[in-house]
Amino acid sequence: MTERQRRVRARAAKPSLSLEAFTAAALAVLEREGMAAVTLRRLAKELQTGPASLYAYVRTVQELHALVLDRVLADVDLHPGLDGDPRARLKAVCTSYLHVLLRHDGLAGLAAGVLPYGENAIALTDTVLGCLRATGASPLRAAWGYDVLMLHVTAVAAEMNRRRGQRDPVGRARTAYEDGADERFPHAGALHEELFAGTGAQRVSWALDAVLVGIAAAKEPEA
Amino acid sequence: MTERQRRVRARAAKPSLSLEAFTAAALAVLEREGMAAVTLRRLAKELQTGPASLYAYVRTVQELHALVLDRVLADVDLHPGLDGDPRARLKAVCTSYLHVLLRHDGLAGLAAGVLPYGENAIALTDTVLGCLRATGASPLRAAWGYDVLMLHVTAVAAEMNRRRGQRDPVGRARTAYEDGADERFPHAGALHEELFAGTGAQRVSWALDAVLVGIAAAKEPEA
Repeated sequence: MTERQRRVRARAAKPSLSLEAFTAAALAVLEREGMAAVTLRRLAKELQTGPASLYAYVRTVQELHALVLDRVLADVDLHPGLDGDPRARLKAVCTSYLHVLLRHDGLAGLAAGVLPYGENAIALTDTVLGCLRATGASPLRAAWGYDVLMLHVTAVAAEMNRRRGQRDPVGRARTAYEDGADERFPHAGALHEELFAGTGAQRVSWALDAVLVGIAAAKEPEA
Repeated sequence: MTERQRRVRARAAKPSLSLEAFTAAALAVLEREGMAAVTLRRLAKELQTGPASLYAYVRTVQELHALVLDRVLADVDLHPGLDGDPRARLKAVCTSYLHVLLRHDGLAGLAAGVLPYGENAIALTDTVLGCLRATGASPLRAAWGYDVLMLHVTAVAAEMNRRRGQRDPVGRARTAYEDGADERFPHAGALHEELFAGTGAQRVSWALDAVLVGIAAAKEPEA
């Protein structure tokens, strides 16, 4: 094989840059090295291409993060078979969003940092807004409620993701509350068991209920 | 001046490592270089000392972050002069916590990643729990409600902090919703103005109200 043939073969073996390959590479870097490593330069290196061929998809690191998040949001189950019960559907969609964020290490942290604006993000927004409107929320309540809800679920996912990587994430705090909550801190002392009670799933479910109830029952927003 | 005198003078000029100097150095590194730079090694270098003298205060990077956060939490106003109205006091304390997190760039992101367990953290917890109990919440509702509330305010602060550093944080998303919300996404299309309506302060205040109302009105938690 001549040197020229070798170069041609090497080029042919290099996959053309599909959106799927691009997203997969970004998620792999995210899982291995964390969010700060998900940059255009790093992705270009990973995909053995120049930054110019990435420009077809994104121009900045913010756009890169938004695109990766949007691709992953395609996996959120928007039709969990509860179309007749908008509150139940809303909770199921939020829970599916939570689980999708937890599928890739670091993804929830990335989601906390960007406003995704692709097709899958808009489809999720549309579904959440539709459910909120179907429960009787005004346009402004639905819009601001959507914001509170997504912020909450994303923050829960980011916290769960971080704790997965820690040996004993609450141990030190639990001990401090048990030991340090003396007469100066009567409520912390009295509730130190409740603060750490329940399973993760119980706490996540109740927190989501609380946010959903609050969005429905808070006074009408004013803008 | 002999070499020995020079060494003695250099040692004398080096400040002894107070907790205040330690925290100030950590906050300076956080603001300049972000959370990932706030490590024991970096702090030792910053303070011109060895890691061993930091061990008096902290042993791990998690402990380091928790300590820095706890020191900053001393500035939260726990007595905003509303002792007779626990709901109003609760909202004022949460708002003070939000503003304290926003005083240092990167601090909200750091707060989202640790469970602080020092004296100031326990004092804040105790105040929030006390207010929730005073509004009639059961022990478990107060404890889990505290969790939802802190998660929410910390996430709001982290989002505000990030957007401060961006030229036009919502512009691209707003355009996408205006352009992309066609007949496939009727709710996103219909509400694209509401999604971006209001001032930051209006939205933050309503979101906090919604979370507080939800904590009070959600069904009793079970653990």
